[in-house]
Amino acid sequence: MQITILGGGGFLGRKLAHRLSAEGSLGGRAITGLTLFDLAEPGTLDAPFPVRCLAGDVASAADAARAIAEGTGVVFHLAAVVSAAAEADFDLGMRVNLHGSLAVIEACRKLSAPPRVIFTSSVASFGGGQSALLPDDARQLPGNSYGAQKAAAELLLSDASRRGMLDAVSLRLPTVIVRPGRPNKAASSFFSSILREPLLGLETPLPVGEAFRVWVCSPRRAVDWLLHAASMDTGPLGIDRGVNPPGLAVSVGEMLAALTPAERALVKPVPDATVEAIVGGWPAEFAATRAKKLGFAPQEGVPAILAAFREDDLAATRAERGM
Amino acid sequence: MQITILGGGGFLGRKLAHRLSAEGSLGGRAITGLTLFDLAEPGTLDAPFPVRCLAGDVASAADAARAIAEGTGVVFHLAAVVSAAAEADFDLGMRVNLHGSLAVIEACRKLSAPPRVIFTSSVASFGGGQSALLPDDARQLPGNSYGAQKAAAELLLSDASRRGMLDAVSLRLPTVIVRPGRPNKAASSFFSSILREPLLGLETPLPVGEAFRVWVCSPRRAVDWLLHAASMDTGPLGIDRGVNPPGLAVSVGEMLAALTPAERALVKPVPDATVEAIVGGWPAEFAATRAKKLGFAPQEGVPAILAAFREDDLAATRAERGM
Repeated sequence: MQITILGGGGFLGRKLAHRLSAEGSLGGRAITGLTLFDLAEPGTLDAPFPVRCLAGDVASAADAARAIAEGTGVVFHLAAVVSAAAEADFDLGMRVNLHGSLAVIEACRKLSAPPRVIFTSSVASFGGGQSALLPDDARQLPGNSYGAQKAAAELLLSDASRRGMLDAVSLRLPTVIVRPGRPNKAASSFFSSILREPLLGLETPLPVGEAFRVWVCSPRRAVDWLLHAASMDTGPLGIDRGVNPPGLAVSVGEMLAALTPAERALVKPVPDATVEAIVGGWPAEFAATRAKKLGFAPQEGVPAILAAFREDDLAATRAERGM
Repeated sequence: MQITILGGGGFLGRKLAHRLSAEGSLGGRAITGLTLFDLAEPGTLDAPFPVRCLAGDVASAADAARAIAEGTGVVFHLAAVVSAAAEADFDLGMRVNLHGSLAVIEACRKLSAPPRVIFTSSVASFGGGQSALLPDDARQLPGNSYGAQKAAAELLLSDASRRGMLDAVSLRLPTVIVRPGRPNKAASSFFSSILREPLLGLETPLPVGEAFRVWVCSPRRAVDWLLHAASMDTGPLGIDRGVNPPGLAVSVGEMLAALTPAERALVKPVPDATVEAIVGGWPAEFAATRAKKLGFAPQEGVPAILAAFREDDLAATRAERGM
């Protein structure tokens, strides 16, 4: 089976590629080739199958067609402009998050067999805010451009699935913590920083109060979900291709409680109304009943999330940051 | 105030233009000019203000910008490829229903003041089917490409409103009956035919059973709603720019009961699984509580709908069809 990862140079794309490489197969079928596609050409990786690395613009029909070549069986569509960046630059967000997804549909429908497409949508496509516990059939009423673009792309991917052009599963990923590396432009970046930076011995600002609640998952569990979505039977989904995977509802205070007192002292309250306005609109919890029935594994607690970061990413993050 | 009607050559666009002409003002402000835009250049009409008639492709940035010139205060965006046609020709539906709406956003955001945009969305953007009574916060889970394209456009128009690029109200119009003229490519076309054709003394097929229920409104009431949406205060809408106006839930049998026995005998059962598959997925009833609070007038019963057709359209339809 040929696999393509769009956004293959990003943090989740790299982790996914390494898992595919380590496992050598997906859903019991041997992987015969992997394409990593991103704006800048992704570095290659050791794998028991050929790895093709491509640079391109996902919103370009020609580039998307190169990335999704004849014979592609699975497309992980992770290419995105994140929340605060899409809010700051409307045209860029529209181009990548909406038109990029349209280019993916166009590339997929030209293949002789419809590929499975795993699309990373987001909790930012919902409203509801801090007091919300969203049922599986909650409507998407986004209060930010990123969420609107993701929700619109979901609708069009669902319709393309119904028409047999492709076979999509849209995962509305929770906020992924702990991200390795450095803070990025996502409004949710601080949810990782408040754990990662103290572990590195660094101070970090906290833009919201400790009672603030958030729906999270670890990168490791996000990759589990991506792989499950790639190999599951999509028959039970019917026309409803959006899945709210079973993340963890947690408060900032509960996250900080997993740190040592010395580490915790490095987290400094610096209220930021702009950041709070974005993340404060996202629902803090989902029922995720359907996803559990579909076999998506629930996220364990904060200690497991921290342990995964220590095992998978802490050393690499130190090295990357010259520490 | 300058007004543009996209789809100004269509049946609803013409009716709207005539109402604007008859009233001369909208929401208490004098109309200073009207642009009618359609694929084929719309015929002009007598009006107490200048009328500009344009032919163009709504999905073309240049054509949309010509239609929505500087100074435009209100845009009625009725340009669409209807349900069965969008199902039969995916590319055409995407072009007009999705990319056309994107071109409208682009044209509007270039104006020095954000115009009110009234977008005709559809009940086809919802699932639910015959047993449904949809609340105002029901999610849009369309089972057809037309509905998916309309729902995606709604999301992007809402986001553009939130960003201050325009000021949208998306009306999810019920099935509009009785349409004048001839049957068209909408899957819902028969809901008009079974009343119009017998009034003309003609036989007509009925593709579903008499117990089949449908959510309807008259063209006259649809125009009332368009005008109300153009002049209402949009503050109470917040980020939720989609409105389910208060249509009428009625069965085919109840519709036919408004005909004389001789007229009714002209309606011949001819089951059509393709048509039933499309219209059978649409919800048969909505709560429409929010719309009533917002001042949208409820649709009266079938006799009022038939009376409106007799008064407004029967003679013209006879003439058009050479009868």
